[in-house]
Amino acid sequence: MAFQFEGAKALILGGLGFIGSNLAIRLVEMGANVTIVDSMLPQYGGNMENIELVKSDVNVNFSDIRDSHTLDYIVRDQDIVYSMAGQTSHVDSMTAPLVDLDINCRSQLSILEACRRANPDVGLIYASTRQLYGRPQYLPVDEKHPILPVDVNGINKYAAEMYYSLYSQVHGMRCVSLRLTNTYGPRQQLRGNNQGFVGIFIRKAILGEKISIFGDGTQRRDFNYIDDVVDAFIAASENLDICSGKSFNLGARDIYSLLDFSSILNKLCDFDLELVPFPPDHEAIDIGDYYGDFSNYKNATGWEPKVMLANGLAETVRYFKPQIRKYL
Amino acid sequence: MAFQFEGAKALILGGLGFIGSNLAIRLVEMGANVTIVDSMLPQYGGNMENIELVKSDVNVNFSDIRDSHTLDYIVRDQDIVYSMAGQTSHVDSMTAPLVDLDINCRSQLSILEACRRANPDVGLIYASTRQLYGRPQYLPVDEKHPILPVDVNGINKYAAEMYYSLYSQVHGMRCVSLRLTNTYGPRQQLRGNNQGFVGIFIRKAILGEKISIFGDGTQRRDFNYIDDVVDAFIAASENLDICSGKSFNLGARDIYSLLDFSSILNKLCDFDLELVPFPPDHEAIDIGDYYGDFSNYKNATGWEPKVMLANGLAETVRYFKPQIRKYL
Repeated sequence: MAFQFEGAKALILGGLGFIGSNLAIRLVEMGANVTIVDSMLPQYGGNMENIELVKSDVNVNFSDIRDSHTLDYIVRDQDIVYSMAGQTSHVDSMTAPLVDLDINCRSQLSILEACRRANPDVGLIYASTRQLYGRPQYLPVDEKHPILPVDVNGINKYAAEMYYSLYSQVHGMRCVSLRLTNTYGPRQQLRGNNQGFVGIFIRKAILGEKISIFGDGTQRRDFNYIDDVVDAFIAASENLDICSGKSFNLGARDIYSLLDFSSILNKLCDFDLELVPFPPDHEAIDIGDYYGDFSNYKNATGWEPKVMLANGLAETVRYFKPQIRKYL
Repeated sequence: MAFQFEGAKALILGGLGFIGSNLAIRLVEMGANVTIVDSMLPQYGGNMENIELVKSDVNVNFSDIRDSHTLDYIVRDQDIVYSMAGQTSHVDSMTAPLVDLDINCRSQLSILEACRRANPDVGLIYASTRQLYGRPQYLPVDEKHPILPVDVNGINKYAAEMYYSLYSQVHGMRCVSLRLTNTYGPRQQLRGNNQGFVGIFIRKAILGEKISIFGDGTQRRDFNYIDDVVDAFIAASENLDICSGKSFNLGARDIYSLLDFSSILNKLCDFDLELVPFPPDHEAIDIGDYYGDFSNYKNATGWEPKVMLANGLAETVRYFKPQIRKYL
């Protein structure tokens, strides 16, 4: 039975952030009754600008997912919960590991507990990460690849995935985890230098600042445009029963080195590029080449990415260029 | 360079519990300067009776490992830390998952952080569990077996192991995890009905109460006598450098069904035995047959179990029988 978005109550945790806000806009277009929870932590991705298009059509509730008392109440009458709030910096997870644990691990378990007690029929979709694989032992990485995280963030995100899977198996709840890779696009977090390189590069490109690539620039990655990732969350919602208890890779057909990625960006914006040695704190947790095999998710739901990197980046620059100040 | 116990400062977290207290007695015999931390939570295994033999030779500090401020201070000048404090009930981990997380997952990360900041040269030995394997896909279970925990306890213990391993790899700290199986012997927790079956069976056997086995009694398990497990922690201390960053199974050569285990106990104590259907909350997380392959640990350290079940159980009954009231 396909999920009916028209009139459905959808809760987006972290809904003012990059992926959450784009999902919110899509869900409003599909007729859902959207509630957003966001803590607006200064160094994270939450930005009121992100929901400018739909601000009169969504309910915004400022609270932190670490506050389990609030969650107990808010999840009560929802039809679907999108768990997108997270600490996403790998480097920060090593300097402040307990913050990462509280947000990425403990809060996920308290979300599940809140739903188990008050709303066990709700659907839950969890934004996980390819980071939990660690350094790839083969490419493309499929879901059978060993889980060998190289940072606290990867461990905590994996523990959270295991909770979602366990609550599906033991309590019969419907929970899906999607392992995201490099996502880019409008409403992305551009602030700070401890998130992934994509936001940093886009910010510097638009500002005309010099971009520094760590290492020799040949590291290859896969890139998903935000609209494709939103499609993936919609597909999970529509296929909850067959996906429940499982974790799926997202991914892309186009694989680019960091140099290639920067060259495409350089056709859109004028900036200089340099290669610099890895800083030690980044090198210790760098995963080298990574690209994922998304065929399991394609087979389960029909999802596949559609937007090529050059087109997606052009769209991203078009979004940010006239309003870059709102994202600094 | 072998670890010198004589005069070494050893910290045992959970040192008033079953395994911690037996380790404390051994370390005192070996000339170590032992500090015990224990929260004495009523439903857990902490019992002052356990250190009766060495109470004037150890420092006892009552505090909870969830109190990270205390830990920051206490770990400072230790040579070795044994992390034995834990929530061990699988059933309780499903009804109170956040308590399990705070003790078994979050506290372990805060212990590591305390050591990283104040005492990065300390050795750390973590008491993990075979529970993280879930239902065995083959027997005996070696360390390459997939990690598919069937309860919150297994997930949290695995996350903690991954922290210990990560801190070894990234921060160069010396950390070892030992995956314990069914441990039995003097000073075991006998109270309560939500811990493992071994303590429950021993209590009922000594009290002459009827023992109920869930299922048909043919489930097979491996059993380690406490002295062998203490040997394993000593071996890890003496082989920190080669063991660091790794996780090892303990285990036994003698495998017994629950019926066989009960029969051996029945030769020592007079009680009745019955087979009853699994209660649903136990059945949902039961792992069926389990026994582990401990050859990796034997190869690394020379450790192997020495005490046969019949002898170990006789010793256990001899310890508890005259003082069972102190353990109820």
